[in-house]
Amino acid sequence: MKLDLESDKAGFQERPVTRHRGADAARTTDRVIEEVPVALVFNGISHAVMMVTPRDLQPFAMGFALTEGLVSQASDVFDIEVREHARSFEIDITIATQEFVQLKQQRRSMAGRSGCGVCGIESLELLDLQPERIEAAPLAGPLQPAIARAASELGQYQELQRATGGVHAAAWCSADGAVLRVCEDVGRHNALDKLIGHLALEGVDMQRGFVFMSSRASYELVRKAARMNIPMLATISAPSTLAIDIAAEAGIKLVSFCRQDGCVEYT
Amino acid sequence: MKLDLESDKAGFQERPVTRHRGADAARTTDRVIEEVPVALVFNGISHAVMMVTPRDLQPFAMGFALTEGLVSQASDVFDIEVREHARSFEIDITIATQEFVQLKQQRRSMAGRSGCGVCGIESLELLDLQPERIEAAPLAGPLQPAIARAASELGQYQELQRATGGVHAAAWCSADGAVLRVCEDVGRHNALDKLIGHLALEGVDMQRGFVFMSSRASYELVRKAARMNIPMLATISAPSTLAIDIAAEAGIKLVSFCRQDGCVEYT
Repeated sequence: MKLDLESDKAGFQERPVTRHRGADAARTTDRVIEEVPVALVFNGISHAVMMVTPRDLQPFAMGFALTEGLVSQASDVFDIEVREHARSFEIDITIATQEFVQLKQQRRSMAGRSGCGVCGIESLELLDLQPERIEAAPLAGPLQPAIARAASELGQYQELQRATGGVHAAAWCSADGAVLRVCEDVGRHNALDKLIGHLALEGVDMQRGFVFMSSRASYELVRKAARMNIPMLATISAPSTLAIDIAAEAGIKLVSFCRQDGCVEYT
Repeated sequence: MKLDLESDKAGFQERPVTRHRGADAARTTDRVIEEVPVALVFNGISHAVMMVTPRDLQPFAMGFALTEGLVSQASDVFDIEVREHARSFEIDITIATQEFVQLKQQRRSMAGRSGCGVCGIESLELLDLQPERIEAAPLAGPLQPAIARAASELGQYQELQRATGGVHAAAWCSADGAVLRVCEDVGRHNALDKLIGHLALEGVDMQRGFVFMSSRASYELVRKAARMNIPMLATISAPSTLAIDIAAEAGIKLVSFCRQDGCVEYT
């Protein structure tokens, strides 16, 4: 599938502001991260609306389809078309017929199943709290030097964060911590979906590196990583109990509070 | 309505960890914030599942019912009962019959409408991007001193944040910035719902103070504040474009990057 990434947006807008410093106030402009409703439509049927930073929307749709289990492999996505409306976007995704039949069968029980992995489902029975164990082998090499390298390299790629201050980053790193690709978004789960979409489109083997997130580690990030057989999730901020539990069940190594001089391993 | 808040949980758990500092690694324990699926059931019908820190669950349910428009006033909530299951909670909320009839009528179009205000809705038509203007008058008094005071006072109340490092705080402040009540949660929208639930249960006039959040300012926080006629939302981190737009339409003052020595006014 060929993507049209040339026409991608900046992801932020300039807005007039009043900046207060002690007793002084000055009119100026600020760069503000864009948050836009994006409807995900699979084979003509609306599936979910997510609040997304409108950049990398095609990889986002690919990543969402994969990490939410709508397709089992990238080649089952035939087309991704992005339409811009006045205050929103619509992404039309064409997926393989056999996958679509499954999706339609799931829809009654999945009504409102959202992309952040949990908000929006209607009852506890629909919650996926027992992930399958990943197939990936643990990463070779010592942990702390890889984390330290990723932590030292990430900042230089956080272009939108530098411009606006309000954005999460998801980075793909080699086993030794080299940052190979970074995606940014107002939602951490969207940043991860964009990253996974890019990796899937490029045919990257996700069992041979790790994801490094600027955010905290919550349930839905671990669940999305588990679906992709990613062996390790590292985050700059704290984990939750459920993230630790799900990572342990899936066999994913979870490392949080990642800094250049240290980190905390939870599984 | 009488609440049983005595039996409230800690909100965090101890977990074994390996702490890496440079080349050293030590086995120890860490306090980790709890993230638990909580099903919200209105008059016997499942409405949504949210990932919540299990503290203040009754005020959370009250706040959710109000900010998501399921009831129009606190007195329409007759009972809130919290049941603990093995890995989840269920909150059974009994609301006034006339509100429940409305809710049932809305359900077809609202299937999966989630508590964070947007994830989980299925199509763009269901998105509420045009809030009504709030009825509250602007707060009297100078802005910057009030923000500086709230920013200086908040930290001492962030008990779960100190213990775990992974939590958002929502604070209710008087017009001059005194922090009067703080709620914490893994989700910023949950922290705000808990806070609003407490205020509603105590009969606090929400038009006479402001909400101060430790998080960034996103769409759903502004929309929830607008529903409660709260005249100002202040956040420590950045706003999004949509948060600014919705705040402007609702007539809410939005102030972000709030520090003791400065802030940025967006509307």
